[in-house]
Amino acid sequence: MSHPVSPLALPMPDLAPVPGVLVGTAEVGIRYKSREDVTMMAFPAGTTVAGVFTKNRCPGAPVDWCRGALKGGKARALVVTAGNSNVFTGKAGRETCAQTAAAMAKLAGCKANEVFLASTGVIGERLPTEKLTGALPGIHAALTEKDWNGAARAIMTTDTFPKAATRTARIGDATVTVCGIAKGSGMIAPDMATMLCFLATDAKIPAAVLQGILKKGSDRSFNCVTVDSDTSTSDTVLLFATGTTKHPRVPAAGGPMLKDFTRAVHEVLMDLALMVARDGEGAQKLIQIDVTGAVSAKSAHRIAMSIANSPLVKTAIAGEDANWGRIVMAVGKAGEPADRDKLSVAVGGTWMAREGGVIPGYDETPVVAHMKGREVEIQVDIGLGRGKARVWTCDLTHGYIDINGSYRS
Amino acid sequence: MSHPVSPLALPMPDLAPVPGVLVGTAEVGIRYKSREDVTMMAFPAGTTVAGVFTKNRCPGAPVDWCRGALKGGKARALVVTAGNSNVFTGKAGRETCAQTAAAMAKLAGCKANEVFLASTGVIGERLPTEKLTGALPGIHAALTEKDWNGAARAIMTTDTFPKAATRTARIGDATVTVCGIAKGSGMIAPDMATMLCFLATDAKIPAAVLQGILKKGSDRSFNCVTVDSDTSTSDTVLLFATGTTKHPRVPAAGGPMLKDFTRAVHEVLMDLALMVARDGEGAQKLIQIDVTGAVSAKSAHRIAMSIANSPLVKTAIAGEDANWGRIVMAVGKAGEPADRDKLSVAVGGTWMAREGGVIPGYDETPVVAHMKGREVEIQVDIGLGRGKARVWTCDLTHGYIDINGSYRS
Repeated sequence: MSHPVSPLALPMPDLAPVPGVLVGTAEVGIRYKSREDVTMMAFPAGTTVAGVFTKNRCPGAPVDWCRGALKGGKARALVVTAGNSNVFTGKAGRETCAQTAAAMAKLAGCKANEVFLASTGVIGERLPTEKLTGALPGIHAALTEKDWNGAARAIMTTDTFPKAATRTARIGDATVTVCGIAKGSGMIAPDMATMLCFLATDAKIPAAVLQGILKKGSDRSFNCVTVDSDTSTSDTVLLFATGTTKHPRVPAAGGPMLKDFTRAVHEVLMDLALMVARDGEGAQKLIQIDVTGAVSAKSAHRIAMSIANSPLVKTAIAGEDANWGRIVMAVGKAGEPADRDKLSVAVGGTWMAREGGVIPGYDETPVVAHMKGREVEIQVDIGLGRGKARVWTCDLTHGYIDINGSYRS
Repeated sequence: MSHPVSPLALPMPDLAPVPGVLVGTAEVGIRYKSREDVTMMAFPAGTTVAGVFTKNRCPGAPVDWCRGALKGGKARALVVTAGNSNVFTGKAGRETCAQTAAAMAKLAGCKANEVFLASTGVIGERLPTEKLTGALPGIHAALTEKDWNGAARAIMTTDTFPKAATRTARIGDATVTVCGIAKGSGMIAPDMATMLCFLATDAKIPAAVLQGILKKGSDRSFNCVTVDSDTSTSDTVLLFATGTTKHPRVPAAGGPMLKDFTRAVHEVLMDLALMVARDGEGAQKLIQIDVTGAVSAKSAHRIAMSIANSPLVKTAIAGEDANWGRIVMAVGKAGEPADRDKLSVAVGGTWMAREGGVIPGYDETPVVAHMKGREVEIQVDIGLGRGKARVWTCDLTHGYIDINGSYRS
């Protein structure tokens, strides 16, 4: 929290309240002092929920809890702690989840499996359960529709700026709102969500339909962002739909009436995912990587992630060096079909190498200027097929070492 | 070359000449100024050769050349350049290889496909071929049996110390020598050799047998070392056997008579691989990772490499923080079978977490002391089976960023 704000930070948008959703935060002192560290949301009866979680094989206890609770498809409350992730805490960690959910269920007048839990922070330390459950009634009593901005701050750990996004969408003649907040700036890698991300809408959407929309949107956003290739044990994306606003009934199978709603959810997810990349630990530059001409979209995605995760590519960009040789290396190490002699590489729209060799006498001036900017674009054409993908990452700087060489101390 | 010598550096051993092998170096100015940058070795008629190369799909032209030449199984010369890797240089790169091999073959009185080539350094720039071929006669005229130490220095790029190792072995009643040199300190990752490594012996070994010994030894040494997960386009390990020293004839299938010779080759490879880890760009600590209890040896290796490649584990160790939570994360992200509640983690021989939770009141004193040392040992027991693996890496420090954020400038 004491690190300087990322130069890539974006201002918080004004978040309109989501009808039906109540939000609150409090200073509980789970680990941090003198800042809000517990966030609560409450939802009306009938709220449906969708979730996407880390693929890490050693997930935190709250992830296990949510996976179980998600089977019911219904949600009445969310409790999030920052500072302690309740990961690798064995039986004690599971008991913390059960006790927190039970206490929250009592306040919300619901079943325990309608309470969702998420925690982020240090791994392997017991979460002070009684301190947490003791604080819940006070937070619950002060819930309001308006405290989304406070929630975006209260879920932060090493983040340097709060992350929120919002859209409206039309379902039939009605207008619904989608709001989202997220936190995460390290231990970010593909094949999962981000560390924590919570969305809510006042639309009324069957849980299975909501799950499909969230999954697809996460794959296109959070799963296309990497900071350091490390996959957190706590990554959680939850989407709550209160159904408070009246609109034409959504059939169990979804359908074309949700086209605009799906767009809105996906845009919120994409906004938040890019904010995570912009707040990558130590990030000075946002990097967009486009791969075209791969044998398939999947192959293109793997090649793009190989470039995005390469420490040598990321340090070169930190040094404002358009070192396309390292990009070629990263293409080759992906293990996907590639032919050195068909590869082309561009930086900032200037093609530097084409079909296996440097372009003699290409104009370096625009490339040098582009590398000095805050946003760097890399294009690679594999020259083999029509598969394409776009991913984002950030550069690897001294700031990353500063932050992660002393995280616990 | 201007970076401070790694604190993990080892002194150069005294290398005995390998009967039959002539070595020479010269300042050619391929890229560097005022230092030796071209290395030559010459071997007598009858020398056999084995090779292991990068799995990067965009290999350098010299790697392609060696793969072709290796089919003949015979070698008479080796030419190595430092400063320019001749990678992603298209047709010009292939012509450089052909012209260099032709010029060297003329000097050595052999066929072009008995000449082996390796280059390391910047990617995507044409190697000044005539400068190189023009220098070969002078180097050839001054070859000696004794210049192994000079060769170990002349093949360096970002290395901070030269790397060499030697052993003797018995074959029947005869004693043979195995000498090796290596270079490499970044762009080091598994599934390949190191950047460049050359071994020679005076034993007489059929090429196919030599290949089997080298492959197995590389898998156990270089393929168990990672610095930054980036797989070079130039990685090459070559082993030359001159057959100069008389010993009982080795049958085409090899056999038990080569047990001691195999040990010697593998020990030289292991020595050199660990030196590469010790010279990892920015390395302040050598990290040994043991994984036991995995479902198979392959699974254990993958888990160990996931830990070794995790930026968060590597920065924690740089910060002298025994952050076993990040180790748990890295186990989980490997994608291999793992059960959080059966995992145990030790640092420096002290078990900190066992079967899914921290060991209450474990003595942190020896752990803290261990973390302050130059060599850090991590043990992880997966608790599922009998598979085990050991790998090595180094910590991730500001030095890595310094070196790689300004490599070309």
